[in-house]
Amino acid sequence: MKYWNNNLKNMSEYIPGEQPLNMDDVIKLNTNENPFPPSKQVLESMKDACNSSLRRYPDSTAKDVRALFASMNNLDPDNVFVANGSDEIFSLLFRGFINDDGLAAFPYPSYSLYYTQAELNRVNFECVELDDDFSYNLDNFLKKKYDLTLISNPNNPTGTYCPVPDIRAFLKSYRGLLVVDEAYIDFYDGSAIELVKEYDNVIVTRSFSKSYSLAGLRVGLAISHRDNIRGFMKIKDSYNIDMVAMAGARAALLDDRGFRYNLQMVINNKEYLEERLSAMGFETVPSRANFIFTRHPDVTAETLYNRLKEKNILVRYFGTRRTSEYIRISVGTMLEIKALCSELEAITEA
Amino acid sequence: MKYWNNNLKNMSEYIPGEQPLNMDDVIKLNTNENPFPPSKQVLESMKDACNSSLRRYPDSTAKDVRALFASMNNLDPDNVFVANGSDEIFSLLFRGFINDDGLAAFPYPSYSLYYTQAELNRVNFECVELDDDFSYNLDNFLKKKYDLTLISNPNNPTGTYCPVPDIRAFLKSYRGLLVVDEAYIDFYDGSAIELVKEYDNVIVTRSFSKSYSLAGLRVGLAISHRDNIRGFMKIKDSYNIDMVAMAGARAALLDDRGFRYNLQMVINNKEYLEERLSAMGFETVPSRANFIFTRHPDVTAETLYNRLKEKNILVRYFGTRRTSEYIRISVGTMLEIKALCSELEAITEA
Repeated sequence: MKYWNNNLKNMSEYIPGEQPLNMDDVIKLNTNENPFPPSKQVLESMKDACNSSLRRYPDSTAKDVRALFASMNNLDPDNVFVANGSDEIFSLLFRGFINDDGLAAFPYPSYSLYYTQAELNRVNFECVELDDDFSYNLDNFLKKKYDLTLISNPNNPTGTYCPVPDIRAFLKSYRGLLVVDEAYIDFYDGSAIELVKEYDNVIVTRSFSKSYSLAGLRVGLAISHRDNIRGFMKIKDSYNIDMVAMAGARAALLDDRGFRYNLQMVINNKEYLEERLSAMGFETVPSRANFIFTRHPDVTAETLYNRLKEKNILVRYFGTRRTSEYIRISVGTMLEIKALCSELEAITEA
Repeated sequence: MKYWNNNLKNMSEYIPGEQPLNMDDVIKLNTNENPFPPSKQVLESMKDACNSSLRRYPDSTAKDVRALFASMNNLDPDNVFVANGSDEIFSLLFRGFINDDGLAAFPYPSYSLYYTQAELNRVNFECVELDDDFSYNLDNFLKKKYDLTLISNPNNPTGTYCPVPDIRAFLKSYRGLLVVDEAYIDFYDGSAIELVKEYDNVIVTRSFSKSYSLAGLRVGLAISHRDNIRGFMKIKDSYNIDMVAMAGARAALLDDRGFRYNLQMVINNKEYLEERLSAMGFETVPSRANFIFTRHPDVTAETLYNRLKEKNILVRYFGTRRTSEYIRISVGTMLEIKALCSELEAITEA
């Protein structure tokens, strides 16, 4: 590690959920992927983009995607930024929107990538605890002067949701930059996008990975005041989004019918899963996402995780402070959920 | 710009070459794109990757592409890193491989993205002048203790090439990290990759944008000692390459026949362009890339650029110190070159 700088040496590493080599043998409910494929129209549009134009550089401003999303949300294209997954947005955020002497706040427990990315980019940050039931109390983010507050809404991994009126009330007192990561918002709506029209210190981020079934494509959006978007444009790599990804994102936005249908199926399956778990005695945190965070009074989370893994069913077990009693289960197909529940019944009844 | 940090406020912006809205009306020889399309096999493989697997996250380690490139170059997959274009590699390099008190060196004139990226990432750097004929004299990079030296080989925008024996001799004395950006190496070969097998302080970067006609896809590679590659893996975004891009890169590496044919056509066209320019009195810097850097004794570069632009022919004019007498012309199709040369004859004979 002779040529690593101090920062690279000292930082911790983000550990993504396991991606098994042979997907066919595994029920994979550990990384919040959508169980249903992207729509035919999306795949066809992407195929159409696999043509000789690929010899050209892509549009570095991604103007088609920005214009389309803006028109669908009553915004200006200058309010929209397109990134190589929302991961890229967080990275740019920490590099361009907080000074060395600034202080950031993230909820805890939340998406651990925030902490890793902040470390990597040498951002000073503190974790603000969620309440005992993992709900948000934004007043806790006002106890100190935070220059940047990044919340995950609904929160990953707990699924808890902070209502827009609470965020609006928070903004009456908060003077820093507020980033609302809405990677999971589409499943139950309730977006803070409207606040972007009223406040210049709100950035909403979105992802095509979950609700649009396009985790393999890497597209995320940031929605904010035009000055903030200009900042992202200034520091991003010149050509951060490839042509095929842009075509896929555009087609996904246009296919509203397929999108709504997919969301409804995920929600139905989630409700079924919740009922089955409840019948087994699981205590599940109320979730507005495509995953649930749950624990069993008699069986430890680690045991649940390991026993399921033996049966080739992957769920997520974090084993960190405050999360160690819980497993996170992504909502799968009905077949996957039934297989999961059969195993859980066997484990919890034993 | 209220929420920009000082760094974002103060940094200069990288200006990519113009991308005209309506490509059909324009002869575009300003951004070193390959004039020939990617091969049919590459496009077919990408189309095949536009399937329901896109709902999954891609392989975060890009192991297929790494293994293939490694096997083709007698390396281990642990010596190869796959990035979202080589731009991403430079960004990660500046964030992970030089300390705050370190000093980097870049040639001048060279690819201006280096300077912008270094600024953005607060890397202290100095420019080391190329010789009067724009050739490399690596001894000039030994006059100070540089922790990181990044050279473009062949150099953009001059096309000049530093032979591998010179780099090897340099490495006998140099103790920092040497990065050789080989975005344009494939056209005439002469790669420094073999040095990676001997030295732990060499990183070679490659791009699929030029020689593989895949600028629209965003794939770049870094080849280095496994410790350096591990560093890149540690700080990259978890899923930096999408599934379709990985499929395209893999197919491009496999299609050696199409690749060689494309390169030969570009070289033939380049030689024809050089001859025509020479006959018009142009003085062209010897180039080993798919572009040439040239000036005319009687007509200023700015005039050439503007007069060509009036005719919808785009070439690159930088107008910076040491480059202001020159235009950079990317090698186009034979039809494009002939149209360009007709216009240049009219301009220079007037």
